[in-house]
Amino acid sequence: DLLYLIEAYFQPKLLKGKKILITAGATLEMIDPVRAITNLSSGKMGYAIAQAAYEMGADVTLVSGATALNPPNGVRNISATSAATMYQNVMQNIASQDIFIGVAAVADYSPAQTQQQKIKKSEQSLSLELSRNKDIIAEVASLPSPPFCVGFAAETENLLEYAEAKRLKKKLPLIVANLTSDAMGNDNNKVFLLDSNGTHPLEQAAKIEIARSLLTHVASML
Amino acid sequence: DLLYLIEAYFQPKLLKGKKILITAGATLEMIDPVRAITNLSSGKMGYAIAQAAYEMGADVTLVSGATALNPPNGVRNISATSAATMYQNVMQNIASQDIFIGVAAVADYSPAQTQQQKIKKSEQSLSLELSRNKDIIAEVASLPSPPFCVGFAAETENLLEYAEAKRLKKKLPLIVANLTSDAMGNDNNKVFLLDSNGTHPLEQAAKIEIARSLLTHVASML
Repeated sequence: DLLYLIEAYFQPKLLKGKKILITAGATLEMIDPVRAITNLSSGKMGYAIAQAAYEMGADVTLVSGATALNPPNGVRNISATSAATMYQNVMQNIASQDIFIGVAAVADYSPAQTQQQKIKKSEQSLSLELSRNKDIIAEVASLPSPPFCVGFAAETENLLEYAEAKRLKKKLPLIVANLTSDAMGNDNNKVFLLDSNGTHPLEQAAKIEIARSLLTHVASML
Repeated sequence: DLLYLIEAYFQPKLLKGKKILITAGATLEMIDPVRAITNLSSGKMGYAIAQAAYEMGADVTLVSGATALNPPNGVRNISATSAATMYQNVMQNIASQDIFIGVAAVADYSPAQTQQQKIKKSEQSLSLELSRNKDIIAEVASLPSPPFCVGFAAETENLLEYAEAKRLKKKLPLIVANLTSDAMGNDNNKVFLLDSNGTHPLEQAAKIEIARSLLTHVASML
């Protein structure tokens, strides 16, 4: 609506001249041509961050997994629906970036083999072999001169403990912690920002508001 | 648009007084609170059939799996995103139905156990145990006095052979055969209707047109 457009127009241009790469949405790891392992990420949080970053003056590249959303205006969108293609597209575009925010819920495991034809059902039970995918944000953060890396931790329990452990293990300056029940599929979210100064809780708000608060925090750390 | 509304209004009321139950969309079989096995069904074909059936005068119940679509006007919609809840909701509503059309891409297998908390990644590989789901349309077709049952076969190879085998095995008077590459996610489709009289190819067309042709064929068989 008009009010929103005015508000967006007047966002402080805190990211002017900055290049930012954001991943968003779920990945689909194909078992056969029609079946896949996926997750419940809607893409709303990542898309809100891409939109907020554009409104704050950044040059935004969005690497999108599976999502029903339309990419925000002004943003370069690259579609990459599997963990492997998402990794490739991030790595191809990472060199010139100032900031990387990994919001996509990337599958940790993929089927060890993708069948070329639809599997016919037969047995009463079967066993699906899975192998570990590359950890995109950990790979980005361990580049020789990495961009400023922001991770997301979506947990069902032990939220702050798991998120801080993930931040330290992957060597991220900042991680956003949220409960899956607050985050996934919702228009609102309730998050905590964790950095080396400690835990900064944000009030529950629309994802676009959370996105603006997060990017304001990021800009203050650059 | 207006032209569409006029066309819809003037559809022959071939299903007036008939009760029809349609399943549509994909199922989500949860591995843990955020990860799932799913498939690429968009729900478009099933929703088009529900809409066309309503326009032809039927009393329509739609049992919807995972889909990003809004249910058509005039249709009773029941949300059921797993194979197990879809089975339950179909069986609770089947007794009074004249026609059952199973369009949903119901998962053949589900994880043997759904974890209550998000699984933490650890091993380089892992094995996911799956167990067979109930075959909804086969169960409906084997009821003592079943509704007129229409199945869908989405195949990647041997289309007509697999579809006819499925029709005979599940004792369906009619099955719709389509290639996954023609069907899944698309606005158009190319299908064959298979019944005891043989194979009836339909021209490639918008899914709403396919739906009208299918229901006209069904009405002729009642």
